[in-house]
Amino acid sequence: MTYCVALKLDSGIVFASDSRTNAGVDQISSYKKMKTFVNPGDRSIVILSSGNLSITQNALHAFERLTEKGPRSVWNVDSLHDVAELLGESLRSVRGSDGKFLAQNNIDSGANFILGGQIAGEPMRLFMIYSEGNFIEAGDETPYFQIGETKYGKPIIDRVIKTHTALDEAIKCLLVSFDTTMRSNLSVGLPIDISCYASNSLNLDQVYHITEEDPYFAHVSRHWGEGVRGVFASLPNPEWLESVETL
Amino acid sequence: MTYCVALKLDSGIVFASDSRTNAGVDQISSYKKMKTFVNPGDRSIVILSSGNLSITQNALHAFERLTEKGPRSVWNVDSLHDVAELLGESLRSVRGSDGKFLAQNNIDSGANFILGGQIAGEPMRLFMIYSEGNFIEAGDETPYFQIGETKYGKPIIDRVIKTHTALDEAIKCLLVSFDTTMRSNLSVGLPIDISCYASNSLNLDQVYHITEEDPYFAHVSRHWGEGVRGVFASLPNPEWLESVETL
Repeated sequence: MTYCVALKLDSGIVFASDSRTNAGVDQISSYKKMKTFVNPGDRSIVILSSGNLSITQNALHAFERLTEKGPRSVWNVDSLHDVAELLGESLRSVRGSDGKFLAQNNIDSGANFILGGQIAGEPMRLFMIYSEGNFIEAGDETPYFQIGETKYGKPIIDRVIKTHTALDEAIKCLLVSFDTTMRSNLSVGLPIDISCYASNSLNLDQVYHITEEDPYFAHVSRHWGEGVRGVFASLPNPEWLESVETL
Repeated sequence: MTYCVALKLDSGIVFASDSRTNAGVDQISSYKKMKTFVNPGDRSIVILSSGNLSITQNALHAFERLTEKGPRSVWNVDSLHDVAELLGESLRSVRGSDGKFLAQNNIDSGANFILGGQIAGEPMRLFMIYSEGNFIEAGDETPYFQIGETKYGKPIIDRVIKTHTALDEAIKCLLVSFDTTMRSNLSVGLPIDISCYASNSLNLDQVYHITEEDPYFAHVSRHWGEGVRGVFASLPNPEWLESVETL
């Protein structure tokens, strides 16, 4: 499994992905699930991937090969919508050729991508590409996408993220979201990759790689856990149960 | 969807289930997903159900019919393990007769049950019955089972529940878990049914029905949300981003 999130805020987009891949519990390894395409002043694009690793790797390979083969590629189209189309087509192509062989062994060839960033001439945009190659774009009402093991870490995002949230606070939120997910699901694990795109910068200066030794993540993880247990302890117990407690 | 949990603690078992059922977003209704079988002094048994409503209802119907038809039933077997077998067989029977017709329309006939309580002569026990009719029992290491929409509400249980947790604190934890789930997933909704079985009581005095008007649940929900946001606000932001923030 995998956990990836991207938050599209007024001041930029924050992307985060874990690094754990597993094919059964005895084959757990680390793969980076974040790819960046930056041409300073022209475009800054980040892609996060989840799902079958051979499908996502080969779809990204096909996507990058477009640069050599065709007239349209991630480096020259003038809209992020076109990039989403190219990525969706690449995914369809790989699933078309490999999917039926995986299906013979009941292996899921599903894969998802989150694609975001900015190309000069249009505002920042954020897309989610589904397994079938179709895609949707984030609007103001739903400023984020998650893929992979999404549920454990969703409540904190729903509670604290607004479009006006600052980028540093958004990073803090994502680290809490990842910490919660990693505690409940072994298939999501460190290191966490974070890219922070500042609106209209058309560059990607801020890329972080958070390992087990990262002091900030360790601090957030410990104090979040203690804080949540503290809030829980501060809530009153129900008073219904007095009779039972005396049994 | 549905969300049901049971926590097996030293002092008893707490069961909780929501009441929302949906067949598409335009057919949302309320169904109780908790059934109790109590013969004071002899046995006290609670069953929670999730999955296809026609399958769970008809499996429970078949399970209750055993009382009239056969020598073994929920009212006379002398071990909760036998009750789990009877429920698993009832589920297999209904899926065997109805499942293939549902499959023709790509409708999932999957269903799960949580079964717990105590029969005189043995300690409290807690089982989870899978869609295939097989089942597992909770041990000391994993004192709880969840079925249905389980992930949003799992982190708080993992953080605060130990086998020595008191029953009233466990109820508080389950209400937080349900609140978190209902905020992130519309298919889980009030009212919440709670049954609290006190170890060796062989009765079931404590049954609660929590509606939107319940002042304790409203208090927990509001103060939990405020508290969590407070903990989040108290964590430091990462200091990496100073350059970006000044853009």
